[in-house]
Amino acid sequence: MTDLSAVLDRADQNLPASLERLYSLVRIKSISTDPAFKADCRQAAEWLVEDLKTIGFDASVRDTIGHPMVVAHHAAATVDAPHVLFYGHYDVQPVDPIELWEKDPFDPGIKELSDGRKVLTGRGTADDKGQLMTFVEACRAYKDVHGSLPIRITILFEGEEESGSPSLKPFLDANADELKADYALVCDTGMWDSDTPAIAAALRGLVGEELTVKAADRDLHSGLFGGAAANPIHILTDILAGLHDATGKVTLEGFYDGVEETPENVKASWETLARGAADFLGGVGLSIPSGEKGRSVLELTWARPTAEVNGIWGGYTGDGFKTVIAAQASAKVSFRLVGDQDPAKIRDAFRAYVASKIPGDCSVEFHEHGASPAIQLSYDSPALTKAKSALSDEWKNPAVVIGMGGSIPIVGDFQKTLGMDSLLVGFGLVDDRIHSPNEKYDLKSFHKGIRSWARIMAALAA
Amino acid sequence: MTDLSAVLDRADQNLPASLERLYSLVRIKSISTDPAFKADCRQAAEWLVEDLKTIGFDASVRDTIGHPMVVAHHAAATVDAPHVLFYGHYDVQPVDPIELWEKDPFDPGIKELSDGRKVLTGRGTADDKGQLMTFVEACRAYKDVHGSLPIRITILFEGEEESGSPSLKPFLDANADELKADYALVCDTGMWDSDTPAIAAALRGLVGEELTVKAADRDLHSGLFGGAAANPIHILTDILAGLHDATGKVTLEGFYDGVEETPENVKASWETLARGAADFLGGVGLSIPSGEKGRSVLELTWARPTAEVNGIWGGYTGDGFKTVIAAQASAKVSFRLVGDQDPAKIRDAFRAYVASKIPGDCSVEFHEHGASPAIQLSYDSPALTKAKSALSDEWKNPAVVIGMGGSIPIVGDFQKTLGMDSLLVGFGLVDDRIHSPNEKYDLKSFHKGIRSWARIMAALAA
Repeated sequence: MTDLSAVLDRADQNLPASLERLYSLVRIKSISTDPAFKADCRQAAEWLVEDLKTIGFDASVRDTIGHPMVVAHHAAATVDAPHVLFYGHYDVQPVDPIELWEKDPFDPGIKELSDGRKVLTGRGTADDKGQLMTFVEACRAYKDVHGSLPIRITILFEGEEESGSPSLKPFLDANADELKADYALVCDTGMWDSDTPAIAAALRGLVGEELTVKAADRDLHSGLFGGAAANPIHILTDILAGLHDATGKVTLEGFYDGVEETPENVKASWETLARGAADFLGGVGLSIPSGEKGRSVLELTWARPTAEVNGIWGGYTGDGFKTVIAAQASAKVSFRLVGDQDPAKIRDAFRAYVASKIPGDCSVEFHEHGASPAIQLSYDSPALTKAKSALSDEWKNPAVVIGMGGSIPIVGDFQKTLGMDSLLVGFGLVDDRIHSPNEKYDLKSFHKGIRSWARIMAALAA
Repeated sequence: MTDLSAVLDRADQNLPASLERLYSLVRIKSISTDPAFKADCRQAAEWLVEDLKTIGFDASVRDTIGHPMVVAHHAAATVDAPHVLFYGHYDVQPVDPIELWEKDPFDPGIKELSDGRKVLTGRGTADDKGQLMTFVEACRAYKDVHGSLPIRITILFEGEEESGSPSLKPFLDANADELKADYALVCDTGMWDSDTPAIAAALRGLVGEELTVKAADRDLHSGLFGGAAANPIHILTDILAGLHDATGKVTLEGFYDGVEETPENVKASWETLARGAADFLGGVGLSIPSGEKGRSVLELTWARPTAEVNGIWGGYTGDGFKTVIAAQASAKVSFRLVGDQDPAKIRDAFRAYVASKIPGDCSVEFHEHGASPAIQLSYDSPALTKAKSALSDEWKNPAVVIGMGGSIPIVGDFQKTLGMDSLLVGFGLVDDRIHSPNEKYDLKSFHKGIRSWARIMAALAA
């Protein structure tokens, strides 16, 4: 029996107790966004510290102006082993509408689905308590067998991920020396599908803008003024319709500056994922890819920038009809960024474009809704290659390196503040219903997730 | 002293009592749209019947399935005098938000404005109780002096004008013989300005449409799907932006079929009204005419058809930001029609255009919000010419024949059901705040309105 197989066996033997520990954590109502659960959040942090201490971590609750952080350290068996920072979050989303839950969200348990899958139910089982515990339990199995860990580990658990992480950046700044490692392991993402593990290497950035076009100083009667007075909805729809050309490309000046083509071998691997437009879009009732022509749906959502209108409103929107020419009309627009696109330049280009379309007697107001650049990790770093191989061994199916359409701000913070890249490995599935009623996490994700981390730790140490 | 000048003098002498009678009518809370005021509506009808009887009209309350009509008849002094149907409405708009009224809306009185103008305040003083009473009081003055009326008069007052007139068409159908006259006099419109009386001869029609573009079967996360999934807001803004070409013309197939150029002499008279774009639009904070290029603002609003988006909504419209791709997006669109444009054809053309822009995996639903053709009255009928001259005499300023941007459905009903044209004369001003808190009617409008009708009656009899 190799060193690793003993650890994996131990993880299997530990599973009932691992589940009990996860349940204890899920029972704590650590809803970070609601001040009523402030004490619960602290309780979750304290629970984690105690749990990590049982594995031999030097763990402590660290106060912030918001909910506390958990920081824990454990040395490696050998001095030349790599040092990783593992990140997860112990806070969870609110549970309303509570009446849609089949069972108390804070009374976790196992449920068997009609297809035979066993799933862990409860708020946070997937996002992110179940995921972070896969790593903690992997450490425990390793320690149980060998009395040591193969790599040096610093753990950072935050309690504000679901409420915008206001304390995170200051905490990283103030504790950079303590937290800096060779690279970070982040467990808050998903599998490609229930059989195929995935590592995320490209995360799109985001620029959010809200604009309000103002015309007359009051709502006008379209009978009296229609045909002569500027209609701000017309101006707005004209602006928004002009954001894309006939080929689906975004028309803003300089929009594609910093956008690089994805390496051919990566694109080729995405194409072998055999998830065509019909597969990808079929699940939500669509079938035809919109956006840029001539690119696969995976490339479009992982590696291409977009402009999307996320909301629009103006004029009369109630029942019946009102022949009004509105005084103003608004929209929320977001840009997903890739590569080296500069969020500030994108915002400027958008505002200049909009301004150029506003008639001389009308005006426009902008409201900024955040900006984060894209994150492009290496598709073939040594750590990624090792993790990929470890995951492929565990799941008996090649792991895939994927992009993610959305941003994970922590990865940017680690890059900017601590100067380290991240390895994003997670075991969530698309049907986990995170943020929604009846959140679940597959028992297989939890169990094989623990085993996966044991394998990855061994591989990173090699 | 001529016959007419005695009548005018009498109208002057009657004014205090005329005001008292108007106040009595305004005090009745005849809000037709609110069932709580059903008895008040009947009371207003009964009050009018009693009042008309004091002038010698054969007047009666006539039941409908909704609020009752008032019908009254009075013979002319001579058998060859013309027969007119006078139309007004006794119902009023609701008064909320009540807290914005400076005074109880049902406690009318005179108020002096800062510019010295005296105005009658209260709900319905302008729309339409004050206006209809100008005609009733003109009849009274005539009768007081001569014991007879110069023309044969049928009066029709309805009590559902502010709630869509559901009973009107059936009532006209059922009583066509009784109500049919040589032409109708309708007093529910306004002056050109406070010194210039006006007769409306062109009324734009209206087609209302609501459309909902549907894409995915649920709201999507723009991170996961952005760039690949159809965004219904993009489809909708593209549709709406395409409704007009660069010259401001509406692009729908066949849209301008039936649109005739306004006679040059009429256009010329409109240009002498010296109300340019700056004047017309300046009052609402605008300065640049939108819509079709190369036409005056008066022509644009009175004699040209339009397409206007009256409301639009879709996606996330609350505070903050949500990176959602909406499942659907909606808009309310109206078309103002002129000349012989066919409402049904316009609706069909719009729907065909929209359908042509919907991707194969998306859909669109339409909801109809009414249709009425434009009404084009003669710019120079004998009755209009006589009324114009009478008005010019009273106001010491040439009356103008104008268009109206909005529709007055009753005029179409009179044309279709009773086969008669209407003469639209009214004394409202743009600052009357009809339908809003603090409705008022200028004392001058009321007083000179009575005198104007006396002159018009005399002129029509001549």
